[in-house]
Amino acid sequence: MSYFDAASSAPLHPVARQALLAALDEGWADPARLYREGRRARLLLDAAREAAAEAVGCRPDELVFTPSGTRAVHSGVAGALAGRRRVGAHLVVSAVEHSSVLHAAGAHEAAGGTVTEVGVGRSGAVAAADFAAALREDTALACLQSANHEVGTLQPVAEVAGACRAAGVPLLVDAAQSLAWGPVEAPWSVLAASAHKWGGPAGVGLLAVRKGVRFAPQGPADERESGRAPGFENLPAVVAAAASLRAVRAEAAEQAARLRALVDRIRTRVPELVADVEVVGDPLERLPHLVTFSCLYVDGEALLHGLDREGFSVSSGSSCTSSTLTPSHVLRAMGVLSEGNVRVSLPTTATGDDVERFLAVLPGVVAGVRERLGAPVAAAPREAAAPPPVVDPAPSLVVDARGRRCPIPVIELAKVIGDVPVGGTVTVLADDEAARLDVPAWCGMRGQEYVGEEPAEGGVAYTVRRTA
Amino acid sequence: MSYFDAASSAPLHPVARQALLAALDEGWADPARLYREGRRARLLLDAAREAAAEAVGCRPDELVFTPSGTRAVHSGVAGALAGRRRVGAHLVVSAVEHSSVLHAAGAHEAAGGTVTEVGVGRSGAVAAADFAAALREDTALACLQSANHEVGTLQPVAEVAGACRAAGVPLLVDAAQSLAWGPVEAPWSVLAASAHKWGGPAGVGLLAVRKGVRFAPQGPADERESGRAPGFENLPAVVAAAASLRAVRAEAAEQAARLRALVDRIRTRVPELVADVEVVGDPLERLPHLVTFSCLYVDGEALLHGLDREGFSVSSGSSCTSSTLTPSHVLRAMGVLSEGNVRVSLPTTATGDDVERFLAVLPGVVAGVRERLGAPVAAAPREAAAPPPVVDPAPSLVVDARGRRCPIPVIELAKVIGDVPVGGTVTVLADDEAARLDVPAWCGMRGQEYVGEEPAEGGVAYTVRRTA
Repeated sequence: MSYFDAASSAPLHPVARQALLAALDEGWADPARLYREGRRARLLLDAAREAAAEAVGCRPDELVFTPSGTRAVHSGVAGALAGRRRVGAHLVVSAVEHSSVLHAAGAHEAAGGTVTEVGVGRSGAVAAADFAAALREDTALACLQSANHEVGTLQPVAEVAGACRAAGVPLLVDAAQSLAWGPVEAPWSVLAASAHKWGGPAGVGLLAVRKGVRFAPQGPADERESGRAPGFENLPAVVAAAASLRAVRAEAAEQAARLRALVDRIRTRVPELVADVEVVGDPLERLPHLVTFSCLYVDGEALLHGLDREGFSVSSGSSCTSSTLTPSHVLRAMGVLSEGNVRVSLPTTATGDDVERFLAVLPGVVAGVRERLGAPVAAAPREAAAPPPVVDPAPSLVVDARGRRCPIPVIELAKVIGDVPVGGTVTVLADDEAARLDVPAWCGMRGQEYVGEEPAEGGVAYTVRRTA
Repeated sequence: MSYFDAASSAPLHPVARQALLAALDEGWADPARLYREGRRARLLLDAAREAAAEAVGCRPDELVFTPSGTRAVHSGVAGALAGRRRVGAHLVVSAVEHSSVLHAAGAHEAAGGTVTEVGVGRSGAVAAADFAAALREDTALACLQSANHEVGTLQPVAEVAGACRAAGVPLLVDAAQSLAWGPVEAPWSVLAASAHKWGGPAGVGLLAVRKGVRFAPQGPADERESGRAPGFENLPAVVAAAASLRAVRAEAAEQAARLRALVDRIRTRVPELVADVEVVGDPLERLPHLVTFSCLYVDGEALLHGLDREGFSVSSGSSCTSSTLTPSHVLRAMGVLSEGNVRVSLPTTATGDDVERFLAVLPGVVAGVRERLGAPVAAAPREAAAPPPVVDPAPSLVVDARGRRCPIPVIELAKVIGDVPVGGTVTVLADDEAARLDVPAWCGMRGQEYVGEEPAEGGVAYTVRRTA
């Protein structure tokens, strides 16, 4: 059994477990109390703060512990926006931020603020110039992740931070995915992170706010954590989080090199082993341990279950794996294929043998799903399209895939494209949100022309012109 | 060494520790994921929710886990107020609620809402009729603790809940101090609690909202915990919290009887062993494990340190032990002596021997503090007052205690009261906030008449008439 979803939550690091056990005995009392148990708890809390601050690259009094990375983001965004209320109520975020940032932006908008989402290229990265162009006179805050959580692409944080500094706008960096690998090397103003991403326990986030940044914590506060994170400190978990951050940093360079080689193997071999696969995310400027690919004509949920049965735990941005039945906002912003999407994120315990086993089972699992769905035989459409159609092909066809979920609309499209002449069109009627992303993506992969979409009764009409 | 501050934070229950260790191995993955580790985490989360709901006395889908009791209160107050925005923006709280409730009320007031604080009697309990009288047409929410955290007094929750129901006002019960002992037997609408108060780990609160209660969670949300507590679930801690709640409940009746007897011993013996002590809080309607008393002419911080040196960890509501140098709002609301205040709250591991040792060392520690402060010899003022003053006593005296902290102003008062004739007055000038509470309290204990206070240069003038 191989757990390949470290970007979602990493198993507890042995050092974290050890520190947690020790702190359960030594650090259960209230660090605000004056008696010995309280003083001991205070010493542990102070030491954890110093260790975490050193790893983040800030002063201990700039850093507070929050109950989760999500809470760190929510508090960080709200506090920074409120601190610059006089400047304006404009917030800039990238389109591929973690949902916690987008939810905070949504709450800001609901409260009357304005939000600009900066788009990304097909690799998932913002262009620093685009981000800089979104900054305005009334921009109170800008948010950019250090690395994308779904496709691993690193963002140009240093350039964006420079542009923000030039514009006098504070930059909040969501470093949840990258902090295990190293500090954020850029002049950030606010930084958020989450311990269970680096092998620390659940229940601990970090919020760092540089001295001099205007920051007004929102909501009821108390005297704990500099008034920025109310409630009794989750001290044993905080101690474990700090200890494991230090431990993963000590082995980060070695692990990064090792996992990067394993990921490279997946990046190279999957397209060789499985037809009609799109590996997404930047091939070089990326997290070392994470790779994402999408498989044409594959149902993401069936793929996850198939891999789970073979002992592999991965996640997916496909629409069928989300409760809202929409593809992940990251894949949508990138404009890449969303069906049959798989994210592999290797924990530090993953071995080359694990990866070889994964590569050995993947083709069979994909083929099984495709067969059950009646998908066109791999690469067949392109070959079938080569000879001219046999008799009197209709100049245009309409396929009704309303009520059918991803990847059926694209499979139906692929089945009939050979039935129209070159220059003819196929229109797919679909009400599945993934079709908006996957029909154009299919066109790109198949060399067909995507004409566009129009509203249609009970759905949307996506039209494709056969050019190959 | 004896830890006597369970009401602040209880040491981890052995069952909690065991459950936590197991859940660290089984429950570190994301319960929202579809693969085996995620499904296993989901099962643990569901089981913990069922166990906690059973202990609370609600349906599992009415209960969510929050990062702390404080966060449960903050979210509960904000969500319930927002859910009844159309009714009005009036909030009723008791004057002796936990600071988390009062902070939430403060935030509501800062946002334009109105708040009525219902006062308490000398025992620390609200009168149900007073509470009912505070409910208005535009009251959106009322909050009442099940038991007071500083003096242990039980509140008349059932009667208040009945009055709230009659008025159509939802009642939020902060059950942090009482949930270990049993469910809240009243028709509450919203209930909040905190796991580390019952021997669970830090990092877990409970928020229960009855079906049918209008509730609109505030701030950015996500799909976790019914949209009421965003952020990755602190699953191992949640599992441990539920397990320990079940465990403490199983032994609650037996422990309550045992600890009630130990507390009764303290309640009876302390006033016998130490002169000029006021035991505060209701002697009968109280938590089983908690007793609070105040010692005249004693500096609370020195008393804590003295007890700490003797191996006893207790807390105090005296002004000198708070960062704001004001006496606890609970003692102020009760109008009782705040100097030399000690709260003893016994953990379930406390023994009769521990209590005997405490009773053995307390008199010496108090005497030591009094001696260092130059306090009048115990009970001397009353005896000294009996014979008429010797020669030409001044009809009134002024004592300047500005710049001196509690208990010095009261000690200075006690030193000179015998220097004025019966009918004469002593005026104490003081800038210490505790004097407002402790000068009248001293008068009550000494049978002298408290005339009142007036503003004075650099402080307040408190006047006392000698009547005994």
